[in-house]
Amino acid sequence: MPITIHPTAIVSPKAEIGENCSIGPYSIIYDHVTLGANTVIQAFCEIGYMRDDLEDARLTIGANSLVRSHSVFYQGSTFGEHLQTGHHVIVREQSQIGRYVAIGTLCDIQGQCQLGDCVHLHSKVFVAQLSYIGPFVWIFPSCVLTNDPHPPSYGVKGVHIENYAIVASMSTILPGVRVGAEAVIGAMSLVNRNVPPRQLAFGVPARVWGDIEQRMDAEGKAVYPWFPNLKKRYPAEAMAVWESYLQAREGQRSDAQQ
Amino acid sequence: MPITIHPTAIVSPKAEIGENCSIGPYSIIYDHVTLGANTVIQAFCEIGYMRDDLEDARLTIGANSLVRSHSVFYQGSTFGEHLQTGHHVIVREQSQIGRYVAIGTLCDIQGQCQLGDCVHLHSKVFVAQLSYIGPFVWIFPSCVLTNDPHPPSYGVKGVHIENYAIVASMSTILPGVRVGAEAVIGAMSLVNRNVPPRQLAFGVPARVWGDIEQRMDAEGKAVYPWFPNLKKRYPAEAMAVWESYLQAREGQRSDAQQ
Amino acid sequence: MPITIHPTAIVSPKAEIGENCSIGPYSIIYDHVTLGANTVIQAFCEIGYMRDDLEDARLTIGANSLVRSHSVFYQGSTFGEHLQTGHHVIVREQSQIGRYVAIGTLCDIQGQCQLGDCVHLHSKVFVAQLSYIGPFVWIFPSCVLTNDPHPPSYGVKGVHIENYAIVASMSTILPGVRVGAEAVIGAMSLVNRNVPPRQLAFGVPARVWGDIEQRMDAEGKAVYPWFPNLKKRYPAEAMAVWESYLQAREGQRSDAQQ
Repeated sequence: MPITIHPTAIVSPKAEIGENCSIGPYSIIYDHVTLGANTVIQAFCEIGYMRDDLEDARLTIGANSLVRSHSVFYQGSTFGEHLQTGHHVIVREQSQIGRYVAIGTLCDIQGQCQLGDCVHLHSKVFVAQLSYIGPFVWIFPSCVLTNDPHPPSYGVKGVHIENYAIVASMSTILPGVRVGAEAVIGAMSLVNRNVPPRQLAFGVPARVWGDIEQRMDAEGKAVYPWFPNLKKRYPAEAMAVWESYLQAREGQRSDAQQ
Repeated sequence: MPITIHPTAIVSPKAEIGENCSIGPYSIIYDHVTLGANTVIQAFCEIGYMRDDLEDARLTIGANSLVRSHSVFYQGSTFGEHLQTGHHVIVREQSQIGRYVAIGTLCDIQGQCQLGDCVHLHSKVFVAQLSYIGPFVWIFPSCVLTNDPHPPSYGVKGVHIENYAIVASMSTILPGVRVGAEAVIGAMSLVNRNVPPRQLAFGVPARVWGDIEQRMDAEGKAVYPWFPNLKKRYPAEAMAVWESYLQAREGQRSDAQQ
Repeated sequence: MPITIHPTAIVSPKAEIGENCSIGPYSIIYDHVTLGANTVIQAFCEIGYMRDDLEDARLTIGANSLVRSHSVFYQGSTFGEHLQTGHHVIVREQSQIGRYVAIGTLCDIQGQCQLGDCVHLHSKVFVAQLSYIGPFVWIFPSCVLTNDPHPPSYGVKGVHIENYAIVASMSTILPGVRVGAEAVIGAMSLVNRNVPPRQLAFGVPARVWGDIEQRMDAEGKAVYPWFPNLKKRYPAEAMAVWESYLQAREGQRSDAQQ
């Protein structure tokens, strides 16, 4: 299938554009870019934005991705297949992003971050340098992940958010804090200490309020763990990942009981 | 009067552009768009951004509107006359927006929202799907209106903010919460329960602190209700709306006293 | 050295462009603009955005500046030399900005603000009209500086943040509040009262917790005052500014003790 490049787009001859890709109006593709097949870059984007200190470090975006308009991606980061972004998204250099990741409108991801497969960032999330966000984590609008314990300083420490954890809107995670697997952080929380796996925490500062499984919806049904309720949103292989995670979790529990 | 389309703008021949409209440099007007007379679309905008699932749903922007640069409006929403936006505004599909609405720089309005006449959103407000914002409401910078009581889930419930209510900067409104008419929410509040009409509430979580009429400015004058103080900012007909609202409010009070 | 204007840029013949400047693809330079030598305007910017009420008020950007892509600067503001911005930055009219200022991605600076030399705003900061930010102040992501004590009203009062003060992420400063020199505001604080110089304050609402010099890092070293630790980031003359500030501070102390 042919590549479609809008006549107003500016595409470096050094960029490697996979088959069936599409580059929208007024977008700019710089030198050190590799786009997988079927990937769509919409209008007004800068892809592979160059920094002098990165030399020829490559920006790679996997196949079947969609980057919406007005987004800026720096050279030197890698995205797995099936990326989807909103509009006006910035992702800086040297980040490693998994497959099936969603990055919402007006998110700002600083450099040297890691995002696992199937991470879902809603709108306006700020992710500081060196953050780790595990697979299947959701972060809701306007959250801030910080990295400087004594601002301003050079001693930055990224946050660590483990798989299947949830961070609700407008929360702030302080530098170096670890949010455990499947933990749920309530809206507008200031997380200044580690949150154990499978715990619900909220408040300013956040306090642990109990096990996520105690949380019921209006009809009295347990709402967590959330993954089985939403499994249809994910690719088929995600169910196998969840099941192997559950087995590992059970193994850890029975180890702990012995 | 003629239509002015900058030579670099990309305008679909299917779009309906009212007389005396102006389309700025590098802006894109897609197929399913109707612009009322005298409306200005500035530079770098996408108007009528298309989604496959919306078929030919139309984006309508009323007459005498101004959409500032780098804004993205999806197909399938309707705006009344005299819209004014800041820069980098995103409004998604199937929202119904009244007349004389102001939407500030870097706002993100998700789909299926309702905004009444004369709503004023300041910069960086996030409005989740299914939100209802009544006429004459003001929302100040960086507020977040949420919609998911048990994130992530399919059971979303929009917030409901009634006419003349005020939400000060950096506040978060939790899903399904109702903020009563003329209520005032202080800055950086987490509103997790309904706020009755004409009450002042603030805090994390927000607590009701009394009637808005007790609130005085530095000179000892009552600052609420605010509408009479600012009536010059509004079209003449807004005063009649306020007066009929006051009459209805009095009627409710005397009913309540009987 | 010649000026480099991308063939797709739209540059008013009335604009004054210094030698060796560069204007990126699809950027627009309006009439009332003066750019100092060696300044770079990247792609998709609007520089000197015009308002009818400002007539021919000039936007001046000093030499050796870098404005990153998708930024919008209004006519009528002045920037000193060595400005650096992130992407999608908005700066409105009639602001006075010093030299060596950094303004992060997605910041929104409203009109009539003052920012001193070497101010550093991280991403997504909102700065309301009439704010004063002294030299060497740092403001971290997603902070909001407000200006309306009784929203909505005409009685706006800007905040006043003095030199070398630090405001950590997601904090809100209420209207008219004064944050003293070298004070440190912790993350997610609501600052509703003045903070004395050299004090650490945090919380909702913020409370003063003691002198900044009590604050130690993980290795037991004092982290404040921060300037000496970061002096290499600043131009050489900044050290002399710090030393004269220290002398003035000592003078005030010995005055107070007599």
